[in-house]
Amino acid sequence: MNKRPLILISNDDGYQAKGINCLVDMLRDMADIVVCAPDSVRSGFSCAFSATTPLRLIKRHEEEGVQVWSSNGTPTDCVKLALHELLPDRLPDMVVGGINHGDNGSVNSHYSGTMGVVMEGAMKHIPSLAFSLCDHADDADFEPLRPYVRMMTQKVLAEGMMEGVCLNVNFPLLEGADKERGFLGVRLCRMAKGRWLNEITKCHHPRGYDYYWMVGHYQNDEPEADDTDNWALTHGYVAITPTHVDVTAYQAFPTLESFTKLTYK
Amino acid sequence: MNKRPLILISNDDGYQAKGINCLVDMLRDMADIVVCAPDSVRSGFSCAFSATTPLRLIKRHEEEGVQVWSSNGTPTDCVKLALHELLPDRLPDMVVGGINHGDNGSVNSHYSGTMGVVMEGAMKHIPSLAFSLCDHADDADFEPLRPYVRMMTQKVLAEGMMEGVCLNVNFPLLEGADKERGFLGVRLCRMAKGRWLNEITKCHHPRGYDYYWMVGHYQNDEPEADDTDNWALTHGYVAITPTHVDVTAYQAFPTLESFTKLTYK
Repeated sequence: MNKRPLILISNDDGYQAKGINCLVDMLRDMADIVVCAPDSVRSGFSCAFSATTPLRLIKRHEEEGVQVWSSNGTPTDCVKLALHELLPDRLPDMVVGGINHGDNGSVNSHYSGTMGVVMEGAMKHIPSLAFSLCDHADDADFEPLRPYVRMMTQKVLAEGMMEGVCLNVNFPLLEGADKERGFLGVRLCRMAKGRWLNEITKCHHPRGYDYYWMVGHYQNDEPEADDTDNWALTHGYVAITPTHVDVTAYQAFPTLESFTKLTYK
Repeated sequence: MNKRPLILISNDDGYQAKGINCLVDMLRDMADIVVCAPDSVRSGFSCAFSATTPLRLIKRHEEEGVQVWSSNGTPTDCVKLALHELLPDRLPDMVVGGINHGDNGSVNSHYSGTMGVVMEGAMKHIPSLAFSLCDHADDADFEPLRPYVRMMTQKVLAEGMMEGVCLNVNFPLLEGADKERGFLGVRLCRMAKGRWLNEITKCHHPRGYDYYWMVGHYQNDEPEADDTDNWALTHGYVAITPTHVDVTAYQAFPTLESFTKLTYK
């Protein structure tokens, strides 16, 4: 008996975003699909879950092989709700996050709700794969990603994924002649060292008080290093950054050994 | 000239929580302190920041050497706001998160807003240290932690911290004779492999629809392994888990090499 695989899809841009709908369209011939995604934008929600908010789950749409649900929760909530309430009898073969409207390379990985989706998948021991395109536009063109999204998903369905690891896959935005030529290839990358600068903009409310917007711009602190996700993306390559659940800094143990000598009696 | 150190403190339980107020009391003789913390509970907020919400910053209290501010944002927002708006001319010498009411060991590290605080500190290249006590009670007794919190903070102020690493320090809840005896010592630990189970409880609203609460219980998948944070905590030790900003799964590179052969022309 040849059972079709089952893929759980979520994102942080909301179930109506173009990116998640393109993703469903790219994968629907290779698997049954359950979408469970936030009811509106949850960008920057990281691995947040709702400890104090009652959550709803609403069926938005169903057709052959595709169910679409939304929740008022975070991306992480959506994965937990889907696994527990929508798929109680069958663990999905994969969790796929995205396709995100915007770059999730370098430290953005920590803030990303799309990465929250696949970290949750990995914590549930399900092979998990996040896709992001370096284009924040609502009407971003995801079509150039199609063959890569399909090949990578097919490969993970066939081969599985290392325990405790998920993949953060970022695609550069190609324009003009670069778009004609296509992506230059796929690179395995480490997270670049980088940081956000000027993250706060102060505004003045008509009622007389100050308020603040989170904005800013990202700076790659090692633009010459050619083994990073940022380098791959600025040079036209698809960047795969394998990301692990175990964030222990093992290399710091020798330096920190003296902490174990602290005692108080 | 002997300038007093400056410590930025935040948490995810809110500026009024007992844990953060005890922390200020433990550290105020060794540094000037700026508290910038959420205006109410933000447990489980991870590294989330507010991409779409206008943020406020409200001064709650000031006395010699201590300023207390609150924000309607996330723990991460609080750190960013404090660095940019409250301390534009002087980077703090340390960021301290907590003291959290509850365990941030193992995978809780990913969900924790207290860890969000110190990850943000580490991303800003500031030595950062998170303290958590395995007791969710509003009136938890933090006094037994005092000498350890002071020793560790003093040590990090004096010695600094490895670039890109922050410390996740968890204290076990000691009761009865164990409390009398005190913590057995301090151990450097890795994150235990574990998972949350039965995370969703379905309820029925008087108006006729279903809703869900995020709850569940945590299971340590390797209770015999004595090098984990969970083991240390269940055996009466203080657990220090060094945690890094670079979450690249380097060990996965060889296995994933074949992804770089994917091409489409």
